[in-house]
Amino acid sequence: MTRYRVYDDTKALFHLPDGVIYLDGNSLGALPRGVAERVNRVITTEWGHELIRAWNTAGWYVQPRLLGDRIARLIGAEAGSVMVGDTLSLKVYQALAAALDMNASRKIVLSDTGNFPTDLYMAEGLIETLGRGHQLRLVAPEEIESALSEDVAVLYITEVDYRTGRRHDMAELTAKAHALGIVTVWDLAHSAGALPVALAACGADFAAGCTYKYLNAGPGAPAFLYVGPRHADTARAALSGWMGHAKPFAFELAYAAAGGVERMRVGTPPVLAMAALEASLDIWDRVDIAEVRARSLALGDLLIAEVERRCPSLRLVTPRAHEHRGSQVSFAFDGGYAAMQALIARGVIGDFRAPDIMRFGITPLYIGESEIVRAAEIIEGVIAGEVWRRPEYQVVNAVT
Amino acid sequence: MTRYRVYDDTKALFHLPDGVIYLDGNSLGALPRGVAERVNRVITTEWGHELIRAWNTAGWYVQPRLLGDRIARLIGAEAGSVMVGDTLSLKVYQALAAALDMNASRKIVLSDTGNFPTDLYMAEGLIETLGRGHQLRLVAPEEIESALSEDVAVLYITEVDYRTGRRHDMAELTAKAHALGIVTVWDLAHSAGALPVALAACGADFAAGCTYKYLNAGPGAPAFLYVGPRHADTARAALSGWMGHAKPFAFELAYAAAGGVERMRVGTPPVLAMAALEASLDIWDRVDIAEVRARSLALGDLLIAEVERRCPSLRLVTPRAHEHRGSQVSFAFDGGYAAMQALIARGVIGDFRAPDIMRFGITPLYIGESEIVRAAEIIEGVIAGEVWRRPEYQVVNAVT
Repeated sequence: MTRYRVYDDTKALFHLPDGVIYLDGNSLGALPRGVAERVNRVITTEWGHELIRAWNTAGWYVQPRLLGDRIARLIGAEAGSVMVGDTLSLKVYQALAAALDMNASRKIVLSDTGNFPTDLYMAEGLIETLGRGHQLRLVAPEEIESALSEDVAVLYITEVDYRTGRRHDMAELTAKAHALGIVTVWDLAHSAGALPVALAACGADFAAGCTYKYLNAGPGAPAFLYVGPRHADTARAALSGWMGHAKPFAFELAYAAAGGVERMRVGTPPVLAMAALEASLDIWDRVDIAEVRARSLALGDLLIAEVERRCPSLRLVTPRAHEHRGSQVSFAFDGGYAAMQALIARGVIGDFRAPDIMRFGITPLYIGESEIVRAAEIIEGVIAGEVWRRPEYQVVNAVT
Repeated sequence: MTRYRVYDDTKALFHLPDGVIYLDGNSLGALPRGVAERVNRVITTEWGHELIRAWNTAGWYVQPRLLGDRIARLIGAEAGSVMVGDTLSLKVYQALAAALDMNASRKIVLSDTGNFPTDLYMAEGLIETLGRGHQLRLVAPEEIESALSEDVAVLYITEVDYRTGRRHDMAELTAKAHALGIVTVWDLAHSAGALPVALAACGADFAAGCTYKYLNAGPGAPAFLYVGPRHADTARAALSGWMGHAKPFAFELAYAAAGGVERMRVGTPPVLAMAALEASLDIWDRVDIAEVRARSLALGDLLIAEVERRCPSLRLVTPRAHEHRGSQVSFAFDGGYAAMQALIARGVIGDFRAPDIMRFGITPLYIGESEIVRAAEIIEGVIAGEVWRRPEYQVVNAVT
């Protein structure tokens, strides 16, 4: 299988609207051209013609594992260690439940204030359901390493901060955590498809991520869960659905977990959404994630330089150092919400995160230098030209 | 909006393969003709062109509630009481967690051996996570009423038995349960779109169902959860994801539940799958569920009479009395697995459930009398002609 050259070969594989520079692929990835035809085929040929038989004949039943194996390559995971399904909120919940069960004598879940809120909310809910006196301990992201201690049960963090793009050192934190008897749960929402991840090499315990951002599988696309192979046959599946049963079609009354990561399946998998993911992975299968990373960093450097030169009122909140950065560039700006509305109206689509963060995602499969420079020019026009102060951009009406 | 006549108007709205009599719509409903175009539009126009903006401009964010309201009409639920998302396994988990929380002094979850296994498995997992000494008490379906007692916290059953098609009396059991201080959780997997349900009139507490069976929304289509309005502002959301937060886009660190059933949202909703559901509900919006029920019972009677006359070795396990029957007809037969394989090879698609049940789903939107009679003729040929004894039908190779 021939490798694609990132951008030069891959940009044409995406549908991008005329007049748009899309810098929000870290929130919802752009549409791969192959998706519509693939989903249509699953609807008309498989569902429409094969009907119930397609669970076997079209392989629907085994798709969560096959897709998991294709994602595994991108995150440095062992074959057979990744399962697709549900949403990221549910997958971090499963991971945290299993991790706490493995370390039952400790009561502290350590996370940071840069973790995505749903991870924290799901942990709150799990802790209340457990009712065993667990506590969620939150520290600033830069304090996470020093907060590792022998009373911590689980280190529960997102590798790349959704607001700032600051990246944790997974290898170092995992090693230190393990030395202290701490189990690790990594959220890869802003890592998978954004940069090389090395779960197996780091000895990670659990990880979860989504496929609708850098992996371009579409709105509400399914999540994935990684379980380190040494845990996979013993990890407790707290959300013990029939698809994770050892014999789902024996319809036994009592639960018995399947072997391996298969036990982390819950209910019936989302077949149409998996078809879109399959088509998006057809691109990723032929991409070198190291090449994506090199381009992402260069494009990020370029965006930082261009914006700082043109817009001194925007303050960079993303680390400059490559090793501490994900694949987005964020600036703090008091008028950030309005400025982003004005940018979107001019075709530069990024997004805003409260209280004052303007985010720009770097997705090298379909974003190159020319798009970055043109975006910086438009940002300059909106900021320096004070376009953002116009009344129509002050109205808060968006849900995302 | 003009009503459709069931079958006469609706059959043409479905894609049904030539040579197939599809009696498995109780497992995976047939494809509505409008689905492919609708999903394609969401992919190409909304995702492809609007990109991230479609969460607002195309209304993706509010779809789980809008779709819930359309399902509400079919199950006799109040407007604003039904939320779409996730899978049925997860929705019964949420319901059971909330119900146990409301009745915390009691420890018994009462269910029956006719409940679908995933409901039981999810309860097992929840009970273990709770670690508060709850017990899952299983009785035979016919003993469920007499098993209601003042030590039961939650009555947790499926209205229509997935194997036999036997139907519980929701109004009677709910009234008796409430008189004894028991909270109720109903699984409507084989009810929604199969027969009239009257959640509000029964005073039901919680209910959940799926949309890929009688509602024809496609493989792995999202589930729904009903919370009785009197509980909706206080029910605990054990799976406390960001979409169920009071202010999801404030990105606060602490969880605060949204008001009403909105709190039962978890993660990002499955937009492509919701598009298929939307198209399937375009049919259901114009159908009278009472007419569906009347036809279903008549077709079921016809199938029973035709099969019993032609195949005395098949033993009916579905109740004959209309009030005790859902929308499927099941027969026990020792060679059931092989016989079903032989039937499928001849275009009569039903399914098999261990140990010996041959199931035939009745879906009046696209199945009529001529299909039932023709299916009975083919069943006769396979059974009386001993076709099912051929070696090729003995091999167990299917997952569903």
